[in-house]
Amino acid sequence: MEVAVRLAVQCGEAMLEAIAAVDSQSGLNLKDGKHGIDPQTATDLANERLVIDTLKLIFPTHAVIGEESCAAAGGKVPMVDPSVPTWIVDPIDGTQNFCTSLPLSVVSIGLCLNGVPALGVIYDPFRDELFVGVAAEGAYLNGVRMRADAKRTALDKAMVLTDVGYERSPKGARRLAACHEALLLANTFGVRIVGSTVLALAWVAAGRASAFYVGLHKKDVPKAWDWCAAKAIGDASGVVFLRAENDIPFDLTSPSVCAAGSEALAKTLRRTLCQATVVLKD
Amino acid sequence: MEVAVRLAVQCGEAMLEAIAAVDSQSGLNLKDGKHGIDPQTATDLANERLVIDTLKLIFPTHAVIGEESCAAAGGKVPMVDPSVPTWIVDPIDGTQNFCTSLPLSVVSIGLCLNGVPALGVIYDPFRDELFVGVAAEGAYLNGVRMRADAKRTALDKAMVLTDVGYERSPKGARRLAACHEALLLANTFGVRIVGSTVLALAWVAAGRASAFYVGLHKKDVPKAWDWCAAKAIGDASGVVFLRAENDIPFDLTSPSVCAAGSEALAKTLRRTLCQATVVLKD
Repeated sequence: MEVAVRLAVQCGEAMLEAIAAVDSQSGLNLKDGKHGIDPQTATDLANERLVIDTLKLIFPTHAVIGEESCAAAGGKVPMVDPSVPTWIVDPIDGTQNFCTSLPLSVVSIGLCLNGVPALGVIYDPFRDELFVGVAAEGAYLNGVRMRADAKRTALDKAMVLTDVGYERSPKGARRLAACHEALLLANTFGVRIVGSTVLALAWVAAGRASAFYVGLHKKDVPKAWDWCAAKAIGDASGVVFLRAENDIPFDLTSPSVCAAGSEALAKTLRRTLCQATVVLKD
Repeated sequence: MEVAVRLAVQCGEAMLEAIAAVDSQSGLNLKDGKHGIDPQTATDLANERLVIDTLKLIFPTHAVIGEESCAAAGGKVPMVDPSVPTWIVDPIDGTQNFCTSLPLSVVSIGLCLNGVPALGVIYDPFRDELFVGVAAEGAYLNGVRMRADAKRTALDKAMVLTDVGYERSPKGARRLAACHEALLLANTFGVRIVGSTVLALAWVAAGRASAFYVGLHKKDVPKAWDWCAAKAIGDASGVVFLRAENDIPFDLTSPSVCAAGSEALAKTLRRTLCQATVVLKD
């Protein structure tokens, strides 16, 4: 935990430095042409290099999986023997926000033991907020115990977060918009799009939002590096994780999530989303 | 400016204290039954009282208009003789976020001279960020000159923010969802829902987002206290303000906005929204 916290804060400081250095008129050092709306910055790469190299040095027997190195290898999460302790790292989650200096992005470092997220560290440099969770032990925000919101179990009391990812296809846009409309029609207290799956899940774990969903179509689908730290923290603070599309238990291979502070809200949210999308013609 | 900055920071500190004091399990002191999804907190009322009383004491000849006192009087913005300097105040913008401790709400204090926003002060207590603008002089974020994003003039490069307000009617939900879908189909770089019109406009003024729109239907319609400070700051940092629904020049009575760092983007955004909503049957 100590190593992960130190690395997360170091990466967060690098994010702030990069943003302070940038001329707001010119934008960050994007590989624009190559990635279009799915950008990758020099800070992403430098942060991931720092985290991977340090973890491998300190824990030579552990495996380390990072978003950017996997993106370079085609975007697939490599298979790792579950008996090997495995760090799963997203050096900047919410890279689109980071690119425009929108202060909604975080560093995420998780550790899997026996294939299950056991430790999660998420650092939000813009608010100097550190979310730490140890499964079956507890979750903490800047050292203070935190708990998910178990009370707002109905949509008309619930602050619901979501993301749109990189999904821009006609069918995907229709599905995302149908869910947006269904939640407004259900008189949902609040609907917000944060642009960082990890930050949204950290806020649900801290009880600042009631629920979060994502993964309704092909390109708003998070990967293991979006889930690992947030799942360990959420498990320790009372978050219920369901898949958005079916009853298969949520795990790091899940393409979607309906996460909430209560099972009742997670199920109501999932039912609302499923009803909204099932009526759409393919 | 000195008085407004001091008051804004004082109000922001009261917001942080209220959130620190609250048990995340119980929620803030909402007048829940009375206001449903449009809440009002004790901190709203106390902040507004502080600001109005102080401004009236220091500037006895000025008029002061506050959101909460107007809400108590039926929600209408009172008519004031434009020759009287008029402070327009929203003690907490993003009250829904504030209620759930989601760190996306701000204090907004604006001053109109001859009916035109001349000074704007917006304080974000969660990031300790102070946005100040003096029309025709300049806009500053924590003392550093800031400018809107004039470069990202096309949607596929633009980070677009919006809000859903309290609009939950079938027709309103359909209009909001249709715009959401249209922006995704237009391959917009990013689409975010912040939940605070004032914070969103401050971020556009600071070049952290390219554009913001709101006011597509009856209950997502901001009032003068949402516009005043942000308009003064935006005017000073290069934001272009259009109404979302027609060509009438934007002013404090406008029910909607398409604001962007460039006229080209504001117009493209407005055209996209109008096309998306015009095809809907009433």
